[in-house]
Amino acid sequence: MGYLHSRHEALAKAMAPYTVLLSSGFPQCRNYPDNTYPFRPASHFLYLAGWSAPGSYFLLHNGQAHLFLPPYTIDDVVWSGPGESTQEAARRSECTVHCTDELADFLHTQGVRPESICALPLPCEAQNESFEPLLGRSPSLGHELDRKLALALVELRLHADEQAQAELRVACELTVRAHLEGLKALKAPKEGKTEYDIAQAMLKVVNGCGGYVSFNPIISTSGERLHQIKLGAALVPDRLLLVDFGAESSSGWAGDITNTWPVSGRFSQRQAQIYNLVLEAHRSCVEALAIGVDYAQVHRRAVEVFAEGLDKLGILHGGTIEEYLNSNVVSLFFPHGVGHLMGLDVHDMEDLGDLAGYAPGRERSTLFGWKSLRLNRNLEAGMVVTIEPGLYFIPELFQAPQFMETVDKYVDMQIVGPYFEEVHGVRIERDYMVSETGSVLLTPDMPTTIEEIEQFMARA
Amino acid sequence: MGYLHSRHEALAKAMAPYTVLLSSGFPQCRNYPDNTYPFRPASHFLYLAGWSAPGSYFLLHNGQAHLFLPPYTIDDVVWSGPGESTQEAARRSECTVHCTDELADFLHTQGVRPESICALPLPCEAQNESFEPLLGRSPSLGHELDRKLALALVELRLHADEQAQAELRVACELTVRAHLEGLKALKAPKEGKTEYDIAQAMLKVVNGCGGYVSFNPIISTSGERLHQIKLGAALVPDRLLLVDFGAESSSGWAGDITNTWPVSGRFSQRQAQIYNLVLEAHRSCVEALAIGVDYAQVHRRAVEVFAEGLDKLGILHGGTIEEYLNSNVVSLFFPHGVGHLMGLDVHDMEDLGDLAGYAPGRERSTLFGWKSLRLNRNLEAGMVVTIEPGLYFIPELFQAPQFMETVDKYVDMQIVGPYFEEVHGVRIERDYMVSETGSVLLTPDMPTTIEEIEQFMARA
Repeated sequence: MGYLHSRHEALAKAMAPYTVLLSSGFPQCRNYPDNTYPFRPASHFLYLAGWSAPGSYFLLHNGQAHLFLPPYTIDDVVWSGPGESTQEAARRSECTVHCTDELADFLHTQGVRPESICALPLPCEAQNESFEPLLGRSPSLGHELDRKLALALVELRLHADEQAQAELRVACELTVRAHLEGLKALKAPKEGKTEYDIAQAMLKVVNGCGGYVSFNPIISTSGERLHQIKLGAALVPDRLLLVDFGAESSSGWAGDITNTWPVSGRFSQRQAQIYNLVLEAHRSCVEALAIGVDYAQVHRRAVEVFAEGLDKLGILHGGTIEEYLNSNVVSLFFPHGVGHLMGLDVHDMEDLGDLAGYAPGRERSTLFGWKSLRLNRNLEAGMVVTIEPGLYFIPELFQAPQFMETVDKYVDMQIVGPYFEEVHGVRIERDYMVSETGSVLLTPDMPTTIEEIEQFMARA
Repeated sequence: MGYLHSRHEALAKAMAPYTVLLSSGFPQCRNYPDNTYPFRPASHFLYLAGWSAPGSYFLLHNGQAHLFLPPYTIDDVVWSGPGESTQEAARRSECTVHCTDELADFLHTQGVRPESICALPLPCEAQNESFEPLLGRSPSLGHELDRKLALALVELRLHADEQAQAELRVACELTVRAHLEGLKALKAPKEGKTEYDIAQAMLKVVNGCGGYVSFNPIISTSGERLHQIKLGAALVPDRLLLVDFGAESSSGWAGDITNTWPVSGRFSQRQAQIYNLVLEAHRSCVEALAIGVDYAQVHRRAVEVFAEGLDKLGILHGGTIEEYLNSNVVSLFFPHGVGHLMGLDVHDMEDLGDLAGYAPGRERSTLFGWKSLRLNRNLEAGMVVTIEPGLYFIPELFQAPQFMETVDKYVDMQIVGPYFEEVHGVRIERDYMVSETGSVLLTPDMPTTIEEIEQFMARA
């Protein structure tokens, strides 16, 4: 009995006397039904059944785990090749394997009433209709039993078990290898290099291993556009390149790191100022990681470091650190959260809204910047989180009416002026697991300080 | 007034006095709402509005074309950068541009009743709910007005206008460039080369131009698995590599070609026999392309060439050509259609089911092989089609109970034996536009005959 069996046991215990039914989901069509995006099974399903085919169901009943696979016809053989054997599927999933054709009968024979089944909505809402013949309803987090299941899975998935840790290390190792190849591609001499050349080098590492990206990569010389996923801009020598790229291992686990590198191989003075300030915030946040610590306070730690640093640089002026914090002016330079949970999803379990990210009773702030904080819990052993503070110079924010008063009062636009063109955006992100000793770095070490990056890029 | 205006005029004429409402659709989530697959607007929308943002609407009312774009907030600026200006959107779409916030009011002010609006379902069904506040219903091909709109768009899109031809040439040219890079990568010496190395070289051409793939590429040494999209098998020297890869231009138009290359640079005798037979079928089908010709007969032409060729090779025996055709034995070697429509979708307009591919009154066959024919119409000038006959050696088909009698009667299993291991699968696909002179090749020429391929691979 392996690691999946332990998960089945833990979930069965939490959910007794109810029956659990999860679907792997179905491929989603891009522009017509036969042209689908690459299929990604639902993460809760993956957590309990390993990898599987579209249209499969995982059933946990009376403490026993069952996997129902769709029938495999001669047409499937023609289009997709011979399928996996039942034996192999049983071995991989640690489940008793059946055909989906038998599912309704199985439930009937076992005397399972639809009212005693808990299920979870699929990420693509339309696919929830597939539950209706079995449940007489679509799964919903508003349904008491489904919510109970969601909370039980959150409780399990929040704490990485040994296998999860091993899988995350694979994803993180792959992620760092990709970043190293990206950095090599950046320093390699080539005419007319673009952001895409870096992407290409990084994708090769991931896809070449049967992996995938855990999200659409951001590889941009306009780092101040937080989710700029269009690739292709020329690599202008005096710019910084912000690279936020994560691998997904072949079994579906995510890595997620961000580096900011100087295209020319050397940081300018202003670039170095901001880079070092972000690195200081990163280190300060990592030091703060420990069991029992409120992650919202880790975010606040980054904000404090930025307030002090931006004040020292003269970019903030006219107030005390306390006043900067109260005015939320730092969010204009740091408009996102300091990190998030990571696991089978790069923002783990966000399919459940804030059920995983926010402790019961906590709610999203409505404040600019703070409202983008994805994790607001007291940390526990085995939680896997990213730390990713960043500083950005987004011209539009400093002209927006809603921020005018704050900007006028606390931002020295004269001093900040050159940073817009020279710096754009800096983010430094690594992945950590909370442990008894504070935190464990999951992402293998790679050039992180200015000295390390410049030395790596200077080497032949 | 440009090409989009002409399309608006033609559609307005066909649909008067009704109002037309199309949606660009919304991004689809992969594992949670913020982690989406790369957004691809719905093709009918693209046809009339060029490219656009998620959540946009195209409205054709009283002969006037309008584009409604979603509001762009300061949060959008932070996450996605500054949006496109209204002026630029108007220029690109040849529409009057408004905000989606104004759409309901606009319809009301113009006195448009929901009963007079025609709409089309989006490829992702769940997204059709977005129409409900405007239409009081979801679009459906079962609805009389929506079906009228579908048929009007089929009539327009079936015939490539000048701009469509230009766009298709861009996509086809990009597709051929990618194949040439794939062929170069195949012949380049490298240790431990895999299918993925070829994919990498091909993807670089497409993605580097801001393009995309028009479908999940098939790059496989197991060409007999028709939609084998997993990459990564080692390139074993005595195998054939089947490469079915299409580019999508940055404006959304598709290319689609298939080559079959010998990994070693030389075809073996059996590989050459099958390759030349497929090429003969390809040429015979292309010769048949002309205005008025029934495309089902083009498929039949390929079946006939295969029947004769397989008989000559001794793979088929014990019957006349007529008997082979009547028994459907050729479909065991050629289990797919000879081609399909191509345009903004690689299988153009398959979001409408068979409304585009099948002429009114024609229906899909239920016969193995023939049931996979995607185009069954008399050809008209401006129709763009692929020609892609193939021969495959799929072991499971020759053991399947439903084909046992046919196999026993007409297939010499002794003779066919070595072809399973030596040939696997061969397909040759190019893209053509039906014209007054017969057909025009849209895909630039590239090595196609055995001699051309072997010479290309032998060159340093």
